[in-house]
Amino acid sequence: MAAAAPPPAPTPAATALPDPTPIGHPLFTRIRLATASDVPHIHKLIHQLANFEHLAHHCSATEASLSSTLFTSPPFQSFTVFILELSQTPFPPQLHTHSALFSPITQTITLDLPIDDPEIETFKSNDKDCGFDVVVGGFALFFPNYSTFLGKPGFYVEDLFVRECYRRKGFGKMLLSAVAAQAVKMGYGRVEWTVLDWNVKAIKFYEEMGAKVLQDWRICRLTDEALQAYANPAAI
Amino acid sequence: MAAAAPPPAPTPAATALPDPTPIGHPLFTRIRLATASDVPHIHKLIHQLANFEHLAHHCSATEASLSSTLFTSPPFQSFTVFILELSQTPFPPQLHTHSALFSPITQTITLDLPIDDPEIETFKSNDKDCGFDVVVGGFALFFPNYSTFLGKPGFYVEDLFVRECYRRKGFGKMLLSAVAAQAVKMGYGRVEWTVLDWNVKAIKFYEEMGAKVLQDWRICRLTDEALQAYANPAAI
Repeated sequence: MAAAAPPPAPTPAATALPDPTPIGHPLFTRIRLATASDVPHIHKLIHQLANFEHLAHHCSATEASLSSTLFTSPPFQSFTVFILELSQTPFPPQLHTHSALFSPITQTITLDLPIDDPEIETFKSNDKDCGFDVVVGGFALFFPNYSTFLGKPGFYVEDLFVRECYRRKGFGKMLLSAVAAQAVKMGYGRVEWTVLDWNVKAIKFYEEMGAKVLQDWRICRLTDEALQAYANPAAI
Repeated sequence: MAAAAPPPAPTPAATALPDPTPIGHPLFTRIRLATASDVPHIHKLIHQLANFEHLAHHCSATEASLSSTLFTSPPFQSFTVFILELSQTPFPPQLHTHSALFSPITQTITLDLPIDDPEIETFKSNDKDCGFDVVVGGFALFFPNYSTFLGKPGFYVEDLFVRECYRRKGFGKMLLSAVAAQAVKMGYGRVEWTVLDWNVKAIKFYEEMGAKVLQDWRICRLTDEALQAYANPAAI
């Protein structure tokens, strides 16, 4: 997992008399549920995340493998993706992006300087109701997990990623907060994810968000040939 | 997670002439899908697991909370439970326990001495097609997770537990092998679970089963009041 670092967007200093002139550059943000048509963007984001983690050689996801395994269940019941979109202009009223299960979350932040996105053409949003300047800036992929001790489900966040030019603006926190809010709404008990122990910046960010880092649990993984050896359990 | 330690059941030594007299005490085992009617047993097993991990004070699961959150989806699509049953007599042909999705796995092991189960009355199986001596010996609770790097699902094993008097006979391995076999059958990429770093016996057992223990990942958890604070993400 990778995440934007903590500092929120700078806001104008309070003045004695309100100034009607906007200070800085507003950036309009929206978090919405992804659909199958977002797979090309999700695929590119996953490969950028793998590069960030120096794990590109372990990344074999293709658009076809993602298409055949994601978006096969209603949102939140299984693998679910939140997409972060950014725009220079306000988002239009919610049309088909508004599902009964999830209302997109819009926020406006003000930046000192506009962001120069070198990949604006690659990550143009494919939401037809939006203006031409909407870009995909990041995503969170999560799914239900289960705590037998609580006797209730939670969410496990497999990936949280913000593209490089949008980091350190609070977008990682926005995405993770959206997952946490959905967990609260559904009466779930926990939101969990993992972090590399050397990523002190991310650990600090997560702790500031209220998360506890469990120091004494280790993940065990059975994969590749070691997993295939269990094709017939009675023969083990 | 807790598991039976590695050694498989002892088998009779080979002799030059086969001896028709059975040596030792046969124990018949079956792994089947749990259903809602297994909740009382699952609830007791979860509390035994919490005691084993010295975490009973964190265990708030009730029969009601388990009943309302488990068995709401078809097996393997969401939270799924395998039940381990043990019997002194062979299991009858598979009747309603045989689902199109999973055929129960039966095996016979031979023990030097019979097992004295002090909780035989508490854990009598409620499968009506079985003899009166069938007892529940353990369980595995697991659900699909997702690897974005592989672009495919896997299984995450939340709990693997064998009751004390049945440990060190290979039953933990049987349960975990059954989950791994199901993952292979479904074309999944991984089976994962967690282990406490001080539980060297369990770590050795898992490594002997072919698992890798990931040393540099830590679990982050947002729960209780820290989670509730995210009820409204736009207000964060």
